[in-house]
Amino acid sequence: PAHGIPDPAVLVARRRPGHVLEGPFYTSPEIFALDIDAVYAKQWIFVATEPEIAEPGDYVTIDLGRYSVIVLRDDDGQVRALHNVCRHRGSRVLLEERGSVGNLVCGYHQWTYATDGRLLHAGEQPPEFDKACFGLRQVAVRTVGGLIFICLATSPPEDFDDVADRIEPYLAPHDLANTKVAAQVDLVEHGNWKLVMENNRECYHCEAGHPELTCTFFPTYGFALEDIPARLMPAHARYLKAGVDLARACDERGLPHAEIEELTDRSTGFRIQREPLDGAGESYTRDGKAACRKLLGDLDIPRLGRLSMHTQPNAWFHFQADHVVTFSVLPLAADRTLVRTTWHVHRDAVEGEDYDLDHLTEVWSRTNEQDGEFVARTQAGVSSPAFVPGPYSSSEYQVDALVTWYLQRLQEHLGR
Amino acid sequence: PAHGIPDPAVLVARRRPGHVLEGPFYTSPEIFALDIDAVYAKQWIFVATEPEIAEPGDYVTIDLGRYSVIVLRDDDGQVRALHNVCRHRGSRVLLEERGSVGNLVCGYHQWTYATDGRLLHAGEQPPEFDKACFGLRQVAVRTVGGLIFICLATSPPEDFDDVADRIEPYLAPHDLANTKVAAQVDLVEHGNWKLVMENNRECYHCEAGHPELTCTFFPTYGFALEDIPARLMPAHARYLKAGVDLARACDERGLPHAEIEELTDRSTGFRIQREPLDGAGESYTRDGKAACRKLLGDLDIPRLGRLSMHTQPNAWFHFQADHVVTFSVLPLAADRTLVRTTWHVHRDAVEGEDYDLDHLTEVWSRTNEQDGEFVARTQAGVSSPAFVPGPYSSSEYQVDALVTWYLQRLQEHLGR
Amino acid sequence: PAHGIPDPAVLVARRRPGHVLEGPFYTSPEIFALDIDAVYAKQWIFVATEPEIAEPGDYVTIDLGRYSVIVLRDDDGQVRALHNVCRHRGSRVLLEERGSVGNLVCGYHQWTYATDGRLLHAGEQPPEFDKACFGLRQVAVRTVGGLIFICLATSPPEDFDDVADRIEPYLAPHDLANTKVAAQVDLVEHGNWKLVMENNRECYHCEAGHPELTCTFFPTYGFALEDIPARLMPAHARYLKAGVDLARACDERGLPHAEIEELTDRSTGFRIQREPLDGAGESYTRDGKAACRKLLGDLDIPRLGRLSMHTQPNAWFHFQADHVVTFSVLPLAADRTLVRTTWHVHRDAVEGEDYDLDHLTEVWSRTNEQDGEFVARTQAGVSSPAFVPGPYSSSEYQVDALVTWYLQRLQEHLGR
Ligand code: FES
Ligand code: FES
Ligand code: FES
Ligand SMILES: [Fe+3]
Ligand SMILES: [Fe+3]
Ligand SMILES: [Fe+3]
Repeated sequence: PAHGIPDPAVLVARRRPGHVLEGPFYTSPEIFALDIDAVYAKQWIFVATEPEIAEPGDYVTIDLGRYSVIVLRDDDGQVRALHNVCRHRGSRVLLEERGSVGNLVCGYHQWTYATDGRLLHAGEQPPEFDKACFGLRQVAVRTVGGLIFICLATSPPEDFDDVADRIEPYLAPHDLANTKVAAQVDLVEHGNWKLVMENNRECYHCEAGHPELTCTFFPTYGFALEDIPARLMPAHARYLKAGVDLARACDERGLPHAEIEELTDRSTGFRIQREPLDGAGESYTRDGKAACRKLLGDLDIPRLGRLSMHTQPNAWFHFQADHVVTFSVLPLAADRTLVRTTWHVHRDAVEGEDYDLDHLTEVWSRTNEQDGEFVARTQAGVSSPAFVPGPYSSSEYQVDALVTWYLQRLQEHLGR
Repeated sequence: PAHGIPDPAVLVARRRPGHVLEGPFYTSPEIFALDIDAVYAKQWIFVATEPEIAEPGDYVTIDLGRYSVIVLRDDDGQVRALHNVCRHRGSRVLLEERGSVGNLVCGYHQWTYATDGRLLHAGEQPPEFDKACFGLRQVAVRTVGGLIFICLATSPPEDFDDVADRIEPYLAPHDLANTKVAAQVDLVEHGNWKLVMENNRECYHCEAGHPELTCTFFPTYGFALEDIPARLMPAHARYLKAGVDLARACDERGLPHAEIEELTDRSTGFRIQREPLDGAGESYTRDGKAACRKLLGDLDIPRLGRLSMHTQPNAWFHFQADHVVTFSVLPLAADRTLVRTTWHVHRDAVEGEDYDLDHLTEVWSRTNEQDGEFVARTQAGVSSPAFVPGPYSSSEYQVDALVTWYLQRLQEHLGR
Repeated sequence: PAHGIPDPAVLVARRRPGHVLEGPFYTSPEIFALDIDAVYAKQWIFVATEPEIAEPGDYVTIDLGRYSVIVLRDDDGQVRALHNVCRHRGSRVLLEERGSVGNLVCGYHQWTYATDGRLLHAGEQPPEFDKACFGLRQVAVRTVGGLIFICLATSPPEDFDDVADRIEPYLAPHDLANTKVAAQVDLVEHGNWKLVMENNRECYHCEAGHPELTCTFFPTYGFALEDIPARLMPAHARYLKAGVDLARACDERGLPHAEIEELTDRSTGFRIQREPLDGAGESYTRDGKAACRKLLGDLDIPRLGRLSMHTQPNAWFHFQADHVVTFSVLPLAADRTLVRTTWHVHRDAVEGEDYDLDHLTEVWSRTNEQDGEFVARTQAGVSSPAFVPGPYSSSEYQVDALVTWYLQRLQEHLGR
């Protein structure tokens, strides 16, 4: 009888290096639950940006596995994260995806909490009832460069400090906190969250799969020199030239641009680098020109390529001179995943005047839809018991890194 | 690895008295199956009223977990319950929710059963085939005061006799058997059946949550005197005054009204009491006036408050002088529950003349919808692994009683 | 606690001969998975016909449990079956239900396979990459009389040769390979695949259940003489007369017609027989007259009844002089099953001239829908824990044979 799956520890141990994971990693509800426990409930997860909750009382609610978390700005202007579960009989407290509140009032029996989580009022309680014991439960939260990360664990990974210190100088010039959200799109992809992330971590599929993206994205991304096919050598030549120009422009302005790549062997795996774009070299648009006339922060020229950052397990980011796009990946089920894409422009930019919404969002909207289709096909394929994990090419080394990071987290978790 | 749930016996044993149950009781498919086995398939369950099957051959089909039961009046006028499963190859016999039949004919191969369940005819059988062995399987059924209870167990709890003896004098004056169904509404609530029942067993949420209901329902229901907030003292004063009037009116007519409350420590837990209504004090309407001009049975005045009855695990009832509302709660899945509400008026009452349907049903239709929303929010909240069961206030003592009764049943079941 | 099911081996062992299977065989997801492993992934399964993939490059994709299989005609004209899973990262290769291709190109990273499964091209691979190791995985495939069977096992049952040898002379005269598909209908029935098959294996339900079918199908099918009720004796008399006529017509033409019935005790259980039809005796139409004017192969008269074949576990066939109908049953879930019905007429027949589509498909379309309803009711019924397996009548002996064959396969599988 073959319908059970091997013990996850066995599956982890027998993974063949340089190869795709076995099917159950993408299809088994047990491993999905394990992923939530070992990854999404233990690591730092990117969930929102500061401009999404600009004012005190502003909040977003985030579903993370079976958790619901309120991310909000408290009355003192501090970013907080609270479990969205009433301490009385467990009702959800905030029901909307986003909004603004004075206090947090549970609609069932009107228990009332402050924006910092303290219980302010609970009706008909005996004198010995101690309100101090019944505040909303706190979730660890950190911000860096305007990005908000939460961690559901009671002892969050401590290496976030180090990561924050090293990425902050890259991110700061774009002054994300002083942007506004121009657009946000939620796409439910029909595949496991790891297939979504793996898809993001290579561009082996870009040349044939993403016509809009490859107007500006060099399709040799991740390729070793010796693997670049002849037809892509002109693009590679442009890439080298654009890289030299970009480095000069950055150095003149004191903008850090060197690659840091620590995708494995640490809890908060990450990669950051400022990289050139093709075409006009300014932004992810069809022609590579800036999508927004108002530049971010103190940046004085649009042609600064893309500051690209990856964080394990669930996010990637593109900071350009004119706009910032953030992507967060949240698992819904073994075979369903939410991809939230958010476009930010200067707080004072005026739609229709400084930027056009379709122009701003076209490339990544189309690219996400194309990737969603790849993910769905792969989910269907790896569900077959006949699936045999194949080898990664060298251009897929970051996929291998993601998978390796993931297995390290499982091992840590199972080892305890 | 934390995605399994503890053994149910462990969960039962570690329940903290006076506190809400832990999350898995509301979300786990295993505990849902256990609830069906230990509660819905073992206890007396209210499923219908006699007026729903007024004539011989009239039936309703009831889904109870994975069981389907036919409740019908047989040719001798007796109320019966039969498993809705053909004894040949197992087809459902009756496919509709309600109707009227001469015999019960299985549509697959035409096996034909009498209304008392006996197999009358089965085609192409060998001579040794004994029809007496293949009648539809009987389900235990009891009626009291026109209410129909079934029990799927082969040895139903015996204490029903005692309960029937004690509640019959309260119910009889309303002569439910001589009413007709004026309206029936099925509402699927998105929560566990226990959340639906717990919601019903307290009115801590009524003041803020049920504007229509609290026109006549005193919002201090269940409150200890010392817990009544100042703003509700006027309502409480009206309640005391109305209670005195009601007791006098009942005593003059020989109507029992005293509270009997045996919600725990027995299989057929129940509570019954005749209680006053606010406003005109006659019925659950916006102004408290009767919704139907024809009074029930021999009742001679409309101002007789509400005869309120709760039965564990799945029902509550309001008998007024002019109409009777019954509520039955049937689990569909760990997170989905059917609430069936039925309004009965005098058999001879004429719609549009003696009663208006909207007027009759408004208060409880709205109240049910509001409660459905509370239940859905609570289901969402207690699904979070971060949920910590909170304490009941004194006004929620009947919720605590329901939960205690439930845990007693689980203990009995697991002990065997 | 009673919500687990007994060990499948226990259920197999305690099955009462001559009786329906116990409920879990139809409802348990565990047994559904076992059915896929022990039956659908081990036995020869009928999936398509040669005319469906008439030309090189033509393909159909078949979902079998969690497997997806490409059945195609390769460049050499040979019928092949390949797992529809890319050897790189597992994407489905072909996404449509049917179509025609030159090569098989995976849309994700463009790995390209020949129609025989060989990997022709994989971009950006290192020199040591051996394409010969990464062809699409082959699935065993056999054709007989134009019917295509696949087997997912690495060692398919060997008795197919014997079956093919014996049925080929019956099938060959209808020359299925030179037909075309006139119509194909997929019906999703809401029941377990075994209920679908059991329904097909008896006609105890036909007289009352299939008014269109019984215009030509003798409703005494499967009945022992002594079980035929008086009202069916006229039909039986017609059956005997038509049988004599049919035998003569066949003998004159050298068409084999005798019954072979080996439904159990072998892997590839089957039954074949040429049998008379009522009415005009030519075809499954309302009046029994041929539905298509062009006869198949070299057949010279339309009145040749029906060549009926059953193969375990998932198919039945009706070959008439004018058209062939094939039925394949593919499980989707414990309670959902796909029934694919395909009508074939002479390759040169012209719609609207030689045949009318409604006339051709009416009888079996209606019959399938009626059977789907029986299956759904039975699925609902046997899901009740109160279901007790009843006895088969003698006219249901082929149902008993199917069940017996099935239990033999489970025993073989569990014994290993
Ligand atoms: S559940 Fe929130 S106040 Fe009762
Ligand atoms: S299943 Fe009811 S008569 Fe056969
Ligand atoms: S998955 Fe097919 S080419 Fe990559
Ligand atoms: Fe992509
Ligand atoms: Fe309520
Ligand atoms: Fe049939």
